Amino acid sequence: MTEQNNEVSALAERLESGDRRAAARIISMLEDNDTGARDIIKAIYPKTGKAHIVGITGPPGAGKSTLADKLTRAVRASGRSVGVVAVDPTSPFTGGALLGDRVRMQDHFTDPEVFIRSMATRGWLGGLAKATKDVVKVMDAMGKDVIFVETVGAGQSEVSIIQAAHTSIVVEMPGLGDDIQAIKAGIMEIGDIFVVNKSDRADSARTVSEREMMLDLNQSKAAWRPPVLQTVARDNKGIEELLVKIDEHMVHLRDSGQLDDYFKKQVRAEFEDLLREELAKYMLEEYTAKNVLEKVLEKLERRELDPYSAVQQLMEPLCKK
Amino acid sequence: MTEQNNEVSALAERLESGDRRAAARIISMLEDNDTGARDIIKAIYPKTGKAHIVGITGPPGAGKSTLADKLTRAVRASGRSVGVVAVDPTSPFTGGALLGDRVRMQDHFTDPEVFIRSMATRGWLGGLAKATKDVVKVMDAMGKDVIFVETVGAGQSEVSIIQAAHTSIVVEMPGLGDDIQAIKAGIMEIGDIFVVNKSDRADSARTVSEREMMLDLNQSKAAWRPPVLQTVARDNKGIEELLVKIDEHMVHLRDSGQLDDYFKKQVRAEFEDLLREELAKYMLEEYTAKNVLEKVLEKLERRELDPYSAVQQLMEPLCKK
Repeated sequence: MTEQNNEVSALAERLESGDRRAAARIISMLEDNDTGARDIIKAIYPKTGKAHIVGITGPPGAGKSTLADKLTRAVRASGRSVGVVAVDPTSPFTGGALLGDRVRMQDHFTDPEVFIRSMATRGWLGGLAKATKDVVKVMDAMGKDVIFVETVGAGQSEVSIIQAAHTSIVVEMPGLGDDIQAIKAGIMEIGDIFVVNKSDRADSARTVSEREMMLDLNQSKAAWRPPVLQTVARDNKGIEELLVKIDEHMVHLRDSGQLDDYFKKQVRAEFEDLLREELAKYMLEEYTAKNVLEKVLEKLERRELDPYSAVQQLMEPLCKK
Repeated sequence: MTEQNNEVSALAERLESGDRRAAARIISMLEDNDTGARDIIKAIYPKTGKAHIVGITGPPGAGKSTLADKLTRAVRASGRSVGVVAVDPTSPFTGGALLGDRVRMQDHFTDPEVFIRSMATRGWLGGLAKATKDVVKVMDAMGKDVIFVETVGAGQSEVSIIQAAHTSIVVEMPGLGDDIQAIKAGIMEIGDIFVVNKSDRADSARTVSEREMMLDLNQSKAAWRPPVLQTVARDNKGIEELLVKIDEHMVHLRDSGQLDDYFKKQVRAEFEDLLREELAKYMLEEYTAKNVLEKVLEKLERRELDPYSAVQQLMEPLCKK
């Protein structure tokens, strides 16, 4: 136990001095849901909260990875360090072997001020959204100034990942389908900055004006009207302008007091999620040990009991306490 | 209380006789997270478990809605009744007004044996995945023989929705992007049937053979080798063949005993999810009432405490019991 505590303190210290191998080791522990992993998070927690977390989301093919790559260069050129978390739904079938578009990012592997991690490789027993937030914390405690989180978007767990970012960039491309398809992705309302990438293609102007029109209809974000930018990430076009907007958005968050609100909301959401997981885990273990769980499940399978009543029955002793 | 119980019993009875207005009323109650809603689920639970639940997923633009429309016609032609649940990530920004592709489905509105529900209109306080499963239960108890659940795919909550289906159809289209993009969606490993829609387009054969090749590499689904079909949903081409495969998959599930396993897994997952929600809700209310929560959150905000330690502290009295 003391030995483990020593290892944890040593790892946390090395991480805070920016040690990449310590970061990799900690992330592996998180991946394995190692008991030491939560001790690490405990240890590094006071050092987190400094990075600017930037979410990059959008449909497959919009060029998110290339954009993250070019933004990484731009941030580095401004003298700041960068973390990149590439999130993909876990696929036990494909593993991570075919993710060829990550290869481009390897250019940065020799830069000690850039730390990149793809989340596609394993099962993440604790859930992908939680794991991503923990990996962001690791990069934050490591001292990375800007952390990009790239997700394919669309699903609720991805929306929750993007909502944990200070600044969310929604990347689109011209002619990917009609307006309704874009709306379907359910990501329109979470964008702080909209990017039409591959804007050298035909229809780019139309996609931009459609997005502008849609934003004009949106009343809820009065304080910050999301800009719509055009980029050709492959050719490094529009990247500087995008970084200017990203930085402006952080200034806006700070000046408007939204950064504090954001922070309180994050703290609360994270606490509640963890409480939910831990409580259920504890109670399920208790019920299993007391041979209650099997009996309840059998009744449910025979439809003699419904799930709501089952939960009610199991929680009764707790509530009477 | 008795009055509400009476209303619940009356609604449940009307639902079981196939009353569409009762179904709509119940779904509204679920949407509002009305306390009566869970009593309804309790009441109808014994009547559920008969429908064949078929998930339809795939990237935006692949033609899922048209496919669901044409499959609905085909199932009706075979004399069976149909439920359709169209799931889209909730968008407070767009509301449901722009979902024009649902309009086509309105052809079925005059058919009493077809019940369609879009999940895009509201906030679903209890979470979209849970709400979808509850709406499926309503259609199941209503006596619908086949229930199609259409989602945009990709996210974890959608994967959880699709995993709740007996048969999952992954819809693609030719030339939507390279292979890696398709893999990225993280839906390859959950497909029981693959459909290349819009197969009158160039590149259709290539998309099919790529998919076949990928499935040949996959060892995990030895008992059922997912077929790869070509359709042109708009022109009603390949729909009959698809329905044959859907029916064959159910026969396979039944004969192989997988249907029982599926059922047990569903029951357990649903119970655990509900327990998680209810426990956390109860405990958060308790902590709030005892003025513990605010103090913990303040410490977390000042980073004097980390979330893991906070949860540990709060759960201590419970665990000592």
